[in-house]
Amino acid sequence: MVDPVGTPGFSRAFRDDLNRLMAWRRDVRSFRTDPLDPEVLETCLSTMSLAPSVGLSEPWRIVRLTSAAARGHALDNFREANADALAGYHGEDAQLYSSLKLSGMTQAPVQLAVFCDDATTQGRGLGTRTMPEMRHYSVVCAIQQFWLVSRAHGVGVGWVSILDPACLARDLAVPDDWKLIAYLCVGYPESSSDTPELSRVGWEDRSGPATILDR
Amino acid sequence: MVDPVGTPGFSRAFRDDLNRLMAWRRDVRSFRTDPLDPEVLETCLSTMSLAPSVGLSEPWRIVRLTSAAARGHALDNFREANADALAGYHGEDAQLYSSLKLSGMTQAPVQLAVFCDDATTQGRGLGTRTMPEMRHYSVVCAIQQFWLVSRAHGVGVGWVSILDPACLARDLAVPDDWKLIAYLCVGYPESSSDTPELSRVGWEDRSGPATILDR
Repeated sequence: MVDPVGTPGFSRAFRDDLNRLMAWRRDVRSFRTDPLDPEVLETCLSTMSLAPSVGLSEPWRIVRLTSAAARGHALDNFREANADALAGYHGEDAQLYSSLKLSGMTQAPVQLAVFCDDATTQGRGLGTRTMPEMRHYSVVCAIQQFWLVSRAHGVGVGWVSILDPACLARDLAVPDDWKLIAYLCVGYPESSSDTPELSRVGWEDRSGPATILDR
Repeated sequence: MVDPVGTPGFSRAFRDDLNRLMAWRRDVRSFRTDPLDPEVLETCLSTMSLAPSVGLSEPWRIVRLTSAAARGHALDNFREANADALAGYHGEDAQLYSSLKLSGMTQAPVQLAVFCDDATTQGRGLGTRTMPEMRHYSVVCAIQQFWLVSRAHGVGVGWVSILDPACLARDLAVPDDWKLIAYLCVGYPESSSDTPELSRVGWEDRSGPATILDR
């Protein structure tokens, strides 16, 4: 369907709510353990397919970790990577880092590993010749849509990147051409805030709107 | 501010509109040439700073191309990369590819090169030890927020990736540690649709919601 510009339009009230959604979306690390409504999860996941993708390649691939074995591998992976990361900090930084809760992997009822299929032929390579990383970026766009829609349903998402991605891919026995983009913890959050947790605990502050350079 | 879960909540009407927004967001290549309202552009850009970023590193850096020299470099870059890409297709694929309009660079009133500062110390490296590419993904999350908010204001965005990224970075004289993530054309779109242009012209179709593997 192609329509003249402005169809559909969006109201000021909607835009205000969209801004509120973005302000209250959080990287959640503290989850309630009660199960997620399966229909809500399906609705949130389905919006990934509305994301932009380079050449319409839709390279996102989703693995849901349900077995104790798969979750155990992922948790061990995180713990080892987190210990290595801690070893890289010293003094007050190390003390603060060790106090941070950096994943909700022991509580989150839903845990997803999101991969990019670097070997997909869908889209016939359009837009990826000079920037093959565009496929990864397409997957990130889909994740960001999932994140926002989830928050609109009262569902929290936490993106864990303190992992050995190649090791997780092997443990989950996915095809060799699948690259891990994100490990997502999903569930109802224990609390809600408009301030990032890393700011609340004093690790880092937001620096405000970016300066725009002119050329 | 930290509040109990559910504060703020979002209505079903808002969620329906959010889904409509995602369905009608497009990668726009055909723009009107009239200028963008500067306040609207500022509002849309300001939502980038609400995006998630690894370790709260906020590594997004934005260059606005306003001079004829900068725009000329970018357009030459695109044309060369696009000619090289066309040479990689044969037969019907080549014929169809050559008919595609793949950028709005000759019309879009606002053009932005969005970079990631790989050398930023903000966030003290948290979350990037095993996955340094997380900084790039943070920039993509910010771009996706900008894209959605822009559409909610009736503004179109087109992401051009048919470019030599290192060459563009040199031409724009940005610091060596800045990696190009996206070249964005921004302006009022000539038309509006809920179907991707690549699908409308027969290059590729959407495959629908992703299959979810269990492990």
